[in-house]
Amino acid sequence: MDVLSIVGLFLALIAILLGAVLKGAGLHALVSAAAFMIVVVGTIAAICVQTPMGVMRRAMSMFPWVIRPPNHEPRKLIKKLIDWSYIARRQGLLGLEDMIQFEPDPFLRKGLQLVVDGSEPDTIRSTLEFDLLAREAADTRAAKVFEGMGVYSPTLGIIGAVLGLMAVMQNLDDPSKLGHGIAAAFTATVYGIGMANLFFLPVANKLKVAVQARTHLDEMQLEGLIGIAQGENPRIIEGKLLGFLH
Amino acid sequence: MDVLSIVGLFLALIAILLGAVLKGAGLHALVSAAAFMIVVVGTIAAICVQTPMGVMRRAMSMFPWVIRPPNHEPRKLIKKLIDWSYIARRQGLLGLEDMIQFEPDPFLRKGLQLVVDGSEPDTIRSTLEFDLLAREAADTRAAKVFEGMGVYSPTLGIIGAVLGLMAVMQNLDDPSKLGHGIAAAFTATVYGIGMANLFFLPVANKLKVAVQARTHLDEMQLEGLIGIAQGENPRIIEGKLLGFLH
Amino acid sequence: MDVLSIVGLFLALIAILLGAVLKGAGLHALVSAAAFMIVVVGTIAAICVQTPMGVMRRAMSMFPWVIRPPNHEPRKLIKKLIDWSYIARRQGLLGLEDMIQFEPDPFLRKGLQLVVDGSEPDTIRSTLEFDLLAREAADTRAAKVFEGMGVYSPTLGIIGAVLGLMAVMQNLDDPSKLGHGIAAAFTATVYGIGMANLFFLPVANKLKVAVQARTHLDEMQLEGLIGIAQGENPRIIEGKLLGFLH
Amino acid sequence: MDVLSIVGLFLALIAILLGAVLKGAGLHALVSAAAFMIVVVGTIAAICVQTPMGVMRRAMSMFPWVIRPPNHEPRKLIKKLIDWSYIARRQGLLGLEDMIQFEPDPFLRKGLQLVVDGSEPDTIRSTLEFDLLAREAADTRAAKVFEGMGVYSPTLGIIGAVLGLMAVMQNLDDPSKLGHGIAAAFTATVYGIGMANLFFLPVANKLKVAVQARTHLDEMQLEGLIGIAQGENPRIIEGKLLGFLH
Amino acid sequence: MDVLSIVGLFLALIAILLGAVLKGAGLHALVSAAAFMIVVVGTIAAICVQTPMGVMRRAMSMFPWVIRPPNHEPRKLIKKLIDWSYIARRQGLLGLEDMIQFEPDPFLRKGLQLVVDGSEPDTIRSTLEFDLLAREAADTRAAKVFEGMGVYSPTLGIIGAVLGLMAVMQNLDDPSKLGHGIAAAFTATVYGIGMANLFFLPVANKLKVAVQARTHLDEMQLEGLIGIAQGENPRIIEGKLLGFLH
Repeated sequence: MDVLSIVGLFLALIAILLGAVLKGAGLHALVSAAAFMIVVVGTIAAICVQTPMGVMRRAMSMFPWVIRPPNHEPRKLIKKLIDWSYIARRQGLLGLEDMIQFEPDPFLRKGLQLVVDGSEPDTIRSTLEFDLLAREAADTRAAKVFEGMGVYSPTLGIIGAVLGLMAVMQNLDDPSKLGHGIAAAFTATVYGIGMANLFFLPVANKLKVAVQARTHLDEMQLEGLIGIAQGENPRIIEGKLLGFLH
Repeated sequence: MDVLSIVGLFLALIAILLGAVLKGAGLHALVSAAAFMIVVVGTIAAICVQTPMGVMRRAMSMFPWVIRPPNHEPRKLIKKLIDWSYIARRQGLLGLEDMIQFEPDPFLRKGLQLVVDGSEPDTIRSTLEFDLLAREAADTRAAKVFEGMGVYSPTLGIIGAVLGLMAVMQNLDDPSKLGHGIAAAFTATVYGIGMANLFFLPVANKLKVAVQARTHLDEMQLEGLIGIAQGENPRIIEGKLLGFLH
Repeated sequence: MDVLSIVGLFLALIAILLGAVLKGAGLHALVSAAAFMIVVVGTIAAICVQTPMGVMRRAMSMFPWVIRPPNHEPRKLIKKLIDWSYIARRQGLLGLEDMIQFEPDPFLRKGLQLVVDGSEPDTIRSTLEFDLLAREAADTRAAKVFEGMGVYSPTLGIIGAVLGLMAVMQNLDDPSKLGHGIAAAFTATVYGIGMANLFFLPVANKLKVAVQARTHLDEMQLEGLIGIAQGENPRIIEGKLLGFLH
Repeated sequence: MDVLSIVGLFLALIAILLGAVLKGAGLHALVSAAAFMIVVVGTIAAICVQTPMGVMRRAMSMFPWVIRPPNHEPRKLIKKLIDWSYIARRQGLLGLEDMIQFEPDPFLRKGLQLVVDGSEPDTIRSTLEFDLLAREAADTRAAKVFEGMGVYSPTLGIIGAVLGLMAVMQNLDDPSKLGHGIAAAFTATVYGIGMANLFFLPVANKLKVAVQARTHLDEMQLEGLIGIAQGENPRIIEGKLLGFLH
Repeated sequence: MDVLSIVGLFLALIAILLGAVLKGAGLHALVSAAAFMIVVVGTIAAICVQTPMGVMRRAMSMFPWVIRPPNHEPRKLIKKLIDWSYIARRQGLLGLEDMIQFEPDPFLRKGLQLVVDGSEPDTIRSTLEFDLLAREAADTRAAKVFEGMGVYSPTLGIIGAVLGLMAVMQNLDDPSKLGHGIAAAFTATVYGIGMANLFFLPVANKLKVAVQARTHLDEMQLEGLIGIAQGENPRIIEGKLLGFLH
């Protein structure tokens, strides 16, 4: 569980709420149905037009990664691959056959099957690379859903502010309402910029880092499997794989 | 049919219209011939200067993809390619000759013809890749027409607002008109930012994703055809092609 | 001749002029020597500092492409290349020698000379690719002159507006001039944003597309010449070259 | 120690403080708990949401590089590698075995071990490249923590200003407070833009240059080790390595 | 000497000064110690934090290229390389030995030495490419110093304007000073945007083009040297090298 992100979301809330109080605007100034309608509904509208259903579902299922990123333990993985390479050296590639059914990760299972089948290293590499690149592209596309929301929400905040100022200007003859009207107009700006910079964009960036980390790990496993299939010295394989850790 | 995009376009309309009412600006504030002339006509002008006729036509013909994206069923495609690979294994590549005339997709038909002609895998790959890359480049160029409109319309909205403010300022001596004048000046901003962020940019992004999805599928078919031409084991081919699904 | 771009430039003029009238600012508000001095002269100044003389000349000579893009007929080109490949098959590569002097395009003439000289396909490819890439880089650099003007003119428009506002503020005690002063200050903004978004940026983008189209065509010719030099089957060559059309 | 960066940070402080005094705003105008809460706490919040714990730690440990960049002496390194190549020529690769334990840099030690083990040049290259690329990616990710803070802080400055203006507008009936309220509202903008442009972004850019410099040096060492493993002429190796110095 | 850039810098000065007079702000409005302190000193501060000493020195020494770009005559260079290739054909590679000491350009001298030493074409290519890429990277990094100043100066201009407005707002009760105060506040904006768009950014872009031109030329020389080392026909070499001229 990633404490930093929870602390961050909590701090973000405090920064805005306490900031509004300290600035003297008050918390009530942040409540506005009109701003909600324009910024929140508008952002959802824009992202729905933009995103195919499948990508939207994937984005939703990836969201919990912000708090609980996929738990990878690269050192355990390297140990497993080195163990396999010793087995392959002693008992031949067929000695790995029993491992396939116990391997939970589908990527590694697919790769191990290819190794046990005695596929050419080039075939293993190209087959697993299609897999890896297709998954990375799909995950990145999903992470970009949050990025898109972070791009649309500030501009919708500007629309909200402009519509609010237009309302104020039409009643310029009643100066007593002027100040409150202008204040209310700006609420949409706070919604739009705040949501984008304290939620959508940081979330999108965190998900992108998680996607890259997973790709990096898959590349490490791919190199390990190729090394096993080529019958490379386990020590050489270990040296290569340790290079992935930084 | 992609329900999400229709819902999105509908929500976008509601967000702006209901938002305008809730903010107190009213719907009538959104009607302006001058704003239409500057933002809508101006955006069309800019994109016409920028776009060659052929690209413009392609963009128009791609627009319906937003609601009804090209219907691809990758699993059916994989099944077809695997069936072909079994036929090729049993009857030789010439056994696929009868399939060519029944294949509706021109890309796949061209590739199958090359396979049946006994072309070298390298020739098949380079020939189909020229095809694939040229189509992707042309489609992307067409999708960028909408992106261009999304870039020009907000800046034209600013021109509209500035021209409106200039008109107001010339009549500063009549304060009763001041408020309405400023309100009217902002209408162009709402048009420009709204059209860009609730229509043009989401549409452009959706089309780009569709173009990428088609390229991804074409790459999968290319790999399948190469596998058949090389007489690879159908199981290996299937493993590769399934890697494209994510 | 590209009607779309002429229509676009015409529409752009209408959008601004009619828009200014409809907004109530009037056409006279768009005439300002100060705005011209700051925005137009300033943009020219910035681009002159930035651009070497040779690139500037090339940019000027490319400008007419906006209205009259270089006229390429890819299908005629493919036909010519296929004809050559049949001649080469029947009479040998030397049979193409007479074609060289009648070929108007220098790129194709250079390539044909290499083919007739019996150069290795790799030599032909690398020689023509240097040519193609150097031309593309030089053309792109020239197209970016207009992009640069589109980047500088809006910021100079802001300088103009700020200078205008500074003039107004110094005479704040005479409110009768206030409005007209502010209106005049904004003229520079309209100049800057208008020129950038209705002229410079669309022109730059159109030229870039034309440069890419020419590169794409040169790549097609390069593949055709390589195919001829390798004595490939004319049908295969045709299949490859047709893939470039989309 | 990099004097330039210390001078820069000192000048930045002077520019803002002396500038505030010269402009007539005074130093006290720069002190605001509300602005601190929104901009500083908000920026920290956003970056915490975005950054996994490991990356955050790495970023903190890289920060001192701004003042005291990692001290590399490329000419000494080249000399060492050339000495090794002479030893390898005279005594064979095993003659380098004693050097391994005295080599402090883990990258060079790992590479030297591979050379002494008699690994294939391709194995040495791929093993060290995994190492180099993984380290560069991790370092760049850490440097981007500061870039992220430089992106978030100005937008949070805008939120602070808007909240301040909202507070002012609610008390529009008390004009005596109006001016001070607006002035206080802008403090957040100064915080946000100032921190981004005088601290976060320059720091991020400096760290990125340091990361590239280290990668460049690692690439030089990699080439040197490959040259030794291939038994290349020390003079040729020296010529190659000197090419890295510019 | 590049007349265009001198004319450009001269026009830039006229555009701002004459523009200020025509707008009615007057030249005296452009003189401000506070704006100078914030924008000029602040920009220098930011770039000093960001830039290592070595890169800063290189940037300063590259600055005169704006007026007097490094004088390359590609046609003379091609002639020299072709002459060398004829000598190499007639007298063997050793016939070029006497040329080395008279060659002023270090890149060409290093390459010629490699050719005369009878190095493999691959060794020549990789050795010279390290050289070329390292020089290009260092030059580009130096050119980016000016780009960085062009990015920081407008944002510091905004800080200056905000500090100025804060000063004005604190004295809102004295309306006679209001106008002049606001006008003075904007001076920093003119400084920031003007310096960036009329000096720093155009200079940075000009230097980048010069760096690319030099790299392009070095690549041409590299191809020529490789051709000589491979004993290629001088006519073929000339055809290749002429392709670099566009």
